[in-house]
Order: sequence, then structure tokens, then C-alpha cells
Amino acid sequence: MRVITLLSDFGLRDWFVPSMKGVILGITPHARIVDVTHEIPAQDVQAGAFVLAAAARAFPKGTIHVAVVDPGVGSSRRAIAVHTGAAIFLGPDNGLLSLAVPDGRGIEMRSLENERYFRQPVSRTFHGRDVFAPVAAHLAKGVKFDSLGPKVASMQRLAARVSIASPGEVRGEIIYVDRFGNLISNITAGQVRAVPGAQVTVGKRRVGPVCWSYSDVPPGQAVAVLNSLDLLEIGVRDGDAARAWRARCGTPLRVVRR
Amino acid sequence: MRVITLLSDFGLRDWFVPSMKGVILGITPHARIVDVTHEIPAQDVQAGAFVLAAAARAFPKGTIHVAVVDPGVGSSRRAIAVHTGAAIFLGPDNGLLSLAVPDGRGIEMRSLENERYFRQPVSRTFHGRDVFAPVAAHLAKGVKFDSLGPKVASMQRLAARVSIASPGEVRGEIIYVDRFGNLISNITAGQVRAVPGAQVTVGKRRVGPVCWSYSDVPPGQAVAVLNSLDLLEIGVRDGDAARAWRARCGTPLRVVRR
Amino acid sequence: MRVITLLSDFGLRDWFVPSMKGVILGITPHARIVDVTHEIPAQDVQAGAFVLAAAARAFPKGTIHVAVVDPGVGSSRRAIAVHTGAAIFLGPDNGLLSLAVPDGRGIEMRSLENERYFRQPVSRTFHGRDVFAPVAAHLAKGVKFDSLGPKVASMQRLAARVSIASPGEVRGEIIYVDRFGNLISNITAGQVRAVPGAQVTVGKRRVGPVCWSYSDVPPGQAVAVLNSLDLLEIGVRDGDAARAWRARCGTPLRVVRR
Repeated sequence: MRVITLLSDFGLRDWFVPSMKGVILGITPHARIVDVTHEIPAQDVQAGAFVLAAAARAFPKGTIHVAVVDPGVGSSRRAIAVHTGAAIFLGPDNGLLSLAVPDGRGIEMRSLENERYFRQPVSRTFHGRDVFAPVAAHLAKGVKFDSLGPKVASMQRLAARVSIASPGEVRGEIIYVDRFGNLISNITAGQVRAVPGAQVTVGKRRVGPVCWSYSDVPPGQAVAVLNSLDLLEIGVRDGDAARAWRARCGTPLRVVRR
Repeated sequence: MRVITLLSDFGLRDWFVPSMKGVILGITPHARIVDVTHEIPAQDVQAGAFVLAAAARAFPKGTIHVAVVDPGVGSSRRAIAVHTGAAIFLGPDNGLLSLAVPDGRGIEMRSLENERYFRQPVSRTFHGRDVFAPVAAHLAKGVKFDSLGPKVASMQRLAARVSIASPGEVRGEIIYVDRFGNLISNITAGQVRAVPGAQVTVGKRRVGPVCWSYSDVPPGQAVAVLNSLDLLEIGVRDGDAARAWRARCGTPLRVVRR
Repeated sequence: MRVITLLSDFGLRDWFVPSMKGVILGITPHARIVDVTHEIPAQDVQAGAFVLAAAARAFPKGTIHVAVVDPGVGSSRRAIAVHTGAAIFLGPDNGLLSLAVPDGRGIEMRSLENERYFRQPVSRTFHGRDVFAPVAAHLAKGVKFDSLGPKVASMQRLAARVSIASPGEVRGEIIYVDRFGNLISNITAGQVRAVPGAQVTVGKRRVGPVCWSYSDVPPGQAVAVLNSLDLLEIGVRDGDAARAWRARCGTPLRVVRR
């Protein structure tokens, strides 16, 4: 009994997501299917990559993650499977898997070319149902990873958004805005802890020191915390920081010594 | 272990959908419950019928599909079960099941009247929880189809929206708009292929030839494709055709010989 | 195989909900996880409490309900488990569980303090993933209820919103608005039945007698019914009463003898 997760930008109102589940259950009725989300903004590969990476770390070893944010479906973009030792990721080779998959050794990648594991006929526009879901189901059923297709040497990676640290200062940017309007940055807990008396600034707005939790400040006040992903997050208690400050992905932020 | 799918216009924020699932699991803890969607626009039987038909074809033989878009709940409208040989459909007899169920032989229908399989007391407004969910669960548990109630000779069908083909021309209309704003028509792949050099027109807007996939055209451009349901679909690459063109269900389209 | 339900205000677009599910499946792969809803308005403890109570009654004995609407996460607010004999409820001690848990005898409560059942390290902002989900999973796996932490004598309860009945009249208020805009009150079916020829008024608007179902009135007309929770509900057939009448939680209503 393997866990298969699904992430997409398909939304929940059409036939796309249940069709993927129907195909999986037709191949392997015992798979445990869990939705990561289907509310990724249409074609937003960056947001999909972030949510996939954030969610995947909570799943047990051996989980098969299917991710479909796929503007290039029907073109010659590659479909890949990535085995990290801890989990398997399936998706288009457009950067979507790249934040969840560590760089380096022990990673095996395959190009999904063995049509034996596809649903036939393969449509031009819905590889979620016809390629990724059935391949995931066959893997859950016991098909060998290396039978999926030829080896691939590297995958597309999203343009690096790495925070830059110098003594007493870290500069980064907002990389995700959650549904509450909280702003998640690419600055890590470790980087923050290396700056004594760290003070946080978002854009031109000074937020203040890093607090323990949202409830450390009164309602309506801005607060910086180290979030549950060990990243620096800025929000407004009981409010929406993204709307209040017109902040979004790419907005710069800084952590400086007091 | 049977699969039970659920489709409704209940949305996901209230107690309606989990109540149906709780009832099912109380009767048959091993059923696999899959949401088709609960985001059908309120009381939109046509949209519900389309999504049900589109999703159902991906599910394994023996699946039990429960569909509840039920403006007439509490009135004398009939509740029915339909056995197609491949699957069972449960829902109000208001046309909701009619696109998923083929016309013709080998279809058996029952009126849900055996109250032994209902949740008691049956409320006036929530037959999803009190009639359809428990009947589905009892079927999954092994109850015989013909014990559900008396035979029914025919079901309500939605007013036919059949595309009309003459030599060198097919006329149809938009029958569904998906969350991306793509326009799905009632013109089939077979009808399109019978028109040499087919050119597509939506309303008064000329779209052009039928392409292989969305990625065949540049972003922002209109494109006609044969979609994953083998229907003619018109969209704007990386855009929203329904909004851009003010198109919706009922908007006419034509396929003509070049 | 135990059922675990999840309710929150996390929404479905971020990594919060799948992370809770991943943690549960890592501890007990056989648990049946069912979403109650994750669309509770942010931090609306009253709405969460209502939906939890409404949904929980449909679930089988032994179900474990996890509810996380938790403005005080990271503060000193207590996290509790409540055993009612029929079900177990886990959540912050802020009133969220109070509508689902009857007052009185036979209720056992524990403060969640045994960190052995937490996910480590426990983050400051996401106790859904780090406290409530793993504790639920351990309970489903067989951990004893009384090993969760010390006994608690009482829980926080929401300010009572009790309808007031005098001979020939009941006064109450709207306590929930569902996605269709229907107005659910705190007046019970029993209270309505005690008023002969009951006439319903919402705010200053006269609705009329209590009907059997929405389909008893023509489209567009106001209607009062006893709903599937045995509460007095007021709606507009095929319409949105909350929007039409600007009614919301707290709007008063009355039932009087004709």
C-alpha cells in the first residue's frame, strides 16, 4: 500500500483531478491517494515547485509524488521521474520538481518513454491522466523504476533564488505568498540566527526583530517569524501582509544586525 | 473494496460533503471514496451532468457514482439508480445522470424507494446524506441492485444538444467552460476529422485550423484542439477564452471546409 | 482502521493540509483520512465549531476529529483531547470543540503535553502538523487516551447563544450562513413545533410559516424550513438570502404564534 500524492493547477471544479484518481484506482486499487493541492495558480511553475517541496517533506519514505503544472503539455518537453532514495517525483521537466529534489548524488532520473505504462490513447492535452497518473500507479503496484525509460543526466532547475549573506546582513526575497497573505522568504533560519539581534525589513518597511510566534504581537501588527519550513516569514497578525503592503514574489527583504 | 465517487454543488466549506462520507464509512468502512467535484455551480444540472460523464469514463468497472445537484429535493422528483453494466449511478432523476448513461439496451434503472437503505430519519433537504450516500454504501457492501426499489422504464434526459453535420460543415455549440476559460463544444473528434482542412469559428470569431496542442501557437493566441474527451475545444494559450470573447454555454461554433 | 477527520482554516492551496496527512500516514498508514473542511474563514472559531458539530454527528463511533482554527498558536493556549464515548476531538482549547462536545458527564479531557506523540521539532506556528496530526495518528494506532497528558477539568466554551422561548414565541439569532446564503438559526425543531401555527420573522422581514422543503415555494421566494440538522433555517429558493437581506451571524429572528 503506497501513498501517491497529486499536485496540479487543475482546480477542483472540472473532471481533471478525479480522472487521474480513477485511472490510478483502476491500476492499483490499494494505493492511498492524497491531494497536495490543485489550486496552484494556472501555469505557475514556481509556486507549484515551492508547495511540492514544502509538503513532500512531511510524507513517509517511499511516497510517490505526481506534480502537473505543465504549460508545455503536447510540446516536446520531457516528462521525468526522479528517485531520491526517500521518494519518487513524477512531472514535466520544467523546473516543477526542482525545489523538492536535492542537487547531487544518489538521485536517479528517467525520461518517461515506456508507453506500456501509459493510458492509451495518450491525449494531446491531458498527460496528468494519460501519462503521470498511470505511471505512478504502476510504480505503486511494483513496476521497477528503471523500466520507465532511459536515464536522464540532469533536470531543468528554476533560476536560483538564493539569499546572499555577508557579515551582519542577509539579503533575500519573497518566494511564496500563502492564502493568509503571509510572505515567505528564501532566507533560512540558520542565516537569521547568524545575525545577532536580527532586524527585518521588507521592501522599505521595517518589520522589527524576529519573534517566536504570531501571538507575540498585538492584532494588526507586523511580525517576522521563523516558520514551520524553517524559513523567515513575515506577516500581520490577524491580517494580510501581502495586501496591506502590496508585497509579492520577488519583493526584496533584508535581515541586518541591530 | 469498491470505489464510490461523489459529485455535488455543495461546495467544500460546509458540513454537507463530510456528512455524506461519514455516513458511507459508518456502513462500509472499506469503501474508497473519491470526490469528483463539489464545485458545480449551484443547481446547474447541465454542468454537473457534463463533469460526471467526463470523469466517470476514467474509473474502473464497478465504480458507484453518486451525483447530487438537486434543485427539487423534497419535492416529488424521483431518486434513481442506474446500472450500466460498467458502473452504477445514483442521483435525482432530473437529467443529471443522463450524459453519463448511454441510451439503449443493457441499462437497468430502479427508483430508490426501499427505505431500509436510507439513513433515518430522512431529512427534507439533504438527501445526499440520508438517501444517496447510504444507498451507495449498502451497494458497495454487497446489497443487490434490484433490492433498491421498483424498476423504472426511462429517465429524464437533458434536452439534446447535438451537433449537426452536413457535407463540409459541422455546427455545434459550447456545452462547458472549464476553470481555465477553455470552451468545450459538442462537436466530436470524428466529426472534425470528416471535414477536410477544417477551419473553426466561435460566434463570429475565426479561430483557424485544428491544432495538435496548445503549445502549437504562441501565448495569447486562440487555438482549437481535440481535447482529452475527444471533443473540439477552443482556448487561448496562457489565457482565458471565455472571458476574452464573452463566450459561454450555448455560444454557437462552426467547423467548415477551407 | 480508524477514521480521522480534519477541519481547519488552512485552505486548500498551501502545504498545510497535505503536510498533516503525510504525518498521519507516516505513523499509521491504514488510517482513513476525511476532510471536513479547510475553508473555515481565517480564525473564525465560531464557524469552525458549528461545522465540526454538524459534520461529526454523521461519523461512525470511534472517529477521531482533528480541528485547527487556532489564532493563539504559539501562545500559552492549551491543546486538548476530548473523549465523549462516541468520538475523540483534538484541537486548541479556544471553544472550537465546544459545540460538538456535550456538556456533562462521561466526557474525559486531557491536555496534550506528552511530547512523545509530537512531531519533532515542534514548530512555533504549525501545531496542526506537529501536534494534532501526530497525536491523532498515534491514537488511531492504539495509543491510550490517558497517556496524552494530564486530565483537564473543563474546556473553553463559546459564549452561549441560546434561543429563548416563552409561550407562543421563540427568539433566536442566525448562527451560521452556508455557501448558498441560507441562514441557519439556533432555534430547534422542537421549539418551533411547540408554537402553534408558527410564523417566522428575520430581522424586520416576515418570512411566513415553516414549510416542508424549499420546493414548497416558487423560485425567488423566502422560505423557512427545519433543516437537516433539526434547526430552523431561512432561505430564498434558488437565491441567496444572506446577500438579499444583508443578514449574517447575529441577525435576530423570531417565531411567533399566528
